[in-house]
Amino acid sequence: MSRYWSAVTHGLTPYVPGEQPSLDNLVKLNTNENPYGPSPRALAAIRAATEDTLRLYPDPDAKALKAALADRYKVSTAQVFVGNGSDEVLAHAFAGLLKHGRALWMPDVTYSFYPVYCGLYGIECRQIPLDGHFILRPEDYFPRDGDNRAGAIIFANPNAPTGRLLPLADVERIVAANPEAVVLVDEAYIDFADQDDATAIALVDRYPNLLVVHTFSKSRAFAGLRIGFAVGHHDLIAGLERIKNSFNSYPLDRLALAGALPSVEDESWFQTSRRRVIATRATLTAQLQALGFEVLPSAANFVFARLPGFDAAELAAALRQRAIIVRHFKTPRIAQYLRITVGDGNQCAALVDALRNILAATRRG
Amino acid sequence: MSRYWSAVTHGLTPYVPGEQPSLDNLVKLNTNENPYGPSPRALAAIRAATEDTLRLYPDPDAKALKAALADRYKVSTAQVFVGNGSDEVLAHAFAGLLKHGRALWMPDVTYSFYPVYCGLYGIECRQIPLDGHFILRPEDYFPRDGDNRAGAIIFANPNAPTGRLLPLADVERIVAANPEAVVLVDEAYIDFADQDDATAIALVDRYPNLLVVHTFSKSRAFAGLRIGFAVGHHDLIAGLERIKNSFNSYPLDRLALAGALPSVEDESWFQTSRRRVIATRATLTAQLQALGFEVLPSAANFVFARLPGFDAAELAAALRQRAIIVRHFKTPRIAQYLRITVGDGNQCAALVDALRNILAATRRG
Repeated sequence: MSRYWSAVTHGLTPYVPGEQPSLDNLVKLNTNENPYGPSPRALAAIRAATEDTLRLYPDPDAKALKAALADRYKVSTAQVFVGNGSDEVLAHAFAGLLKHGRALWMPDVTYSFYPVYCGLYGIECRQIPLDGHFILRPEDYFPRDGDNRAGAIIFANPNAPTGRLLPLADVERIVAANPEAVVLVDEAYIDFADQDDATAIALVDRYPNLLVVHTFSKSRAFAGLRIGFAVGHHDLIAGLERIKNSFNSYPLDRLALAGALPSVEDESWFQTSRRRVIATRATLTAQLQALGFEVLPSAANFVFARLPGFDAAELAAALRQRAIIVRHFKTPRIAQYLRITVGDGNQCAALVDALRNILAATRRG
Repeated sequence: MSRYWSAVTHGLTPYVPGEQPSLDNLVKLNTNENPYGPSPRALAAIRAATEDTLRLYPDPDAKALKAALADRYKVSTAQVFVGNGSDEVLAHAFAGLLKHGRALWMPDVTYSFYPVYCGLYGIECRQIPLDGHFILRPEDYFPRDGDNRAGAIIFANPNAPTGRLLPLADVERIVAANPEAVVLVDEAYIDFADQDDATAIALVDRYPNLLVVHTFSKSRAFAGLRIGFAVGHHDLIAGLERIKNSFNSYPLDRLALAGALPSVEDESWFQTSRRRVIATRATLTAQLQALGFEVLPSAANFVFARLPGFDAAELAAALRQRAIIVRHFKTPRIAQYLRITVGDGNQCAALVDALRNILAATRRG
């Protein structure tokens, strides 16, 4: 507390990211990083750009990257916005597109940064319960009797931290039912869906109220750079550009721009990496189920699981003693679940071995 | 305009950065980039970090960089905040520290992003005229009769776009006279002051209301990365961290962090580069004066100059025809000035030659 803080600063409850430990030799399955690394072509491009020209500003409009994304997703460059990670893109969307006289509607269990943004920008938030299986019911987001409708809507698909995928037809029902409200679909994990055509980007040309947000941190394995983007109607993108250009002209540095372009172009690396994660997820899910875990069906690069009869916080602590870190949220409804990143084969095997040992020790004890 | 924009989005007048042309072979003297490039040690460190580990998130707290800055500036790490360029640091400061019931006071001629931030965050702004020589009068910022005082104060030192330096004793008078108000001193260009001890960081241990903001874009020649930092009382820094952690957990990517650390440590490169710019500035100033320009005394890596009898916009256009770009602001009081970056010797010679030719052609015409 300080008398020099603004009123909003006093009232904030900041987001707490997953731990980024500096210890080596940890099996790090807590922040959904991709085990397979970025495209080698992207790394080569970054090395080539690491030269004296770093003295010069980057392109503030990221024109080349927007063109590559537009090409990849079959939209125009005026339908693409880029930012310093998808968290920055989301922040600008909250300020520029999701703040209205009516409340912002979102699921009760979702990416825990959303309520933080509401606090930062003074947005009223209505949290709508997922059903008992953590499934989003589209009808819950339809306008209701008596002019009871959302000022805007946000949800993650696949949802975090559950991993559940809402079918594209259901996404469309929500968007179509709310022509007055921006619907932001945060697809940070969508590339790990089994099907190739899960993204709501396919709908943006038909719905001017739809904004779809993606990140390079997961499927493109560039969490260490900070690159996110949004696709939507050019009016929505223009609104985001207004906010961005009133905040920071140059959010993406030269090296992020240099790496992002070949990352988008290297479709082969992207597909191979994505398919490996999807295959490992199936194996990991089966192994966890064999140990007695209930595992929610996941379309992301993590699984959300609980072990009946065991306290999730204690399980996480026991894993940590064995140098394995997973994510545990001490929040209502999900306090008995663990969110476990789908690592590579060795990491998943280490996790399953450790769990087996923990369970055996407990049963002996 | 869009019905989907929030109210603030409609009302914004975004900042317009200097042009970043994609054409090669331009003499680019419009955005105050450093002609001498970043430390070779920093480039080597970035290349070494360009590897598979870019799949992992960066340290969200930038602990190593904060420690290096704390060591360099003889403060504690709790007195250091880092961000994605000093513009992001400024944005968070406006939201977290400069928004209060009373107006934010600033000079009428200063970095033109400040009023934009006021628009973004709904901060009332009072613009106080510099004197006829563009000198800031400290007394103008003292509390006045009848409880007429600033909610907070911001100014750039050296000022942009004038280049004028306010002596440290005058900075201290403003800070000391306003114990109730945060005073933000934006020292983006301070390393180009002739003296070594111009920075107000020397005052932060004595004034809990003082925040000093620096950038790596100018004296450390890293405009192509995005690294800025603030130094002040740990309560001010804690306020900035609250905002940052409610906006984006990971503003600095792994490569920026990798390059920033050796950049801070390579004091020899920093001092050599800085001294070369200062020496070139003296030469350029004398050459412009010989052509008839009035040049304000500059402590920055640019000069602010006018040529009586010549329209500044026309001069800028004539230079551009000769592939030289400088910055011209079409704003009151300074519309007849050009802001010219101190380039290397060749760039400055090209500029002076071009100006000589333009003047000769005009006098013949």
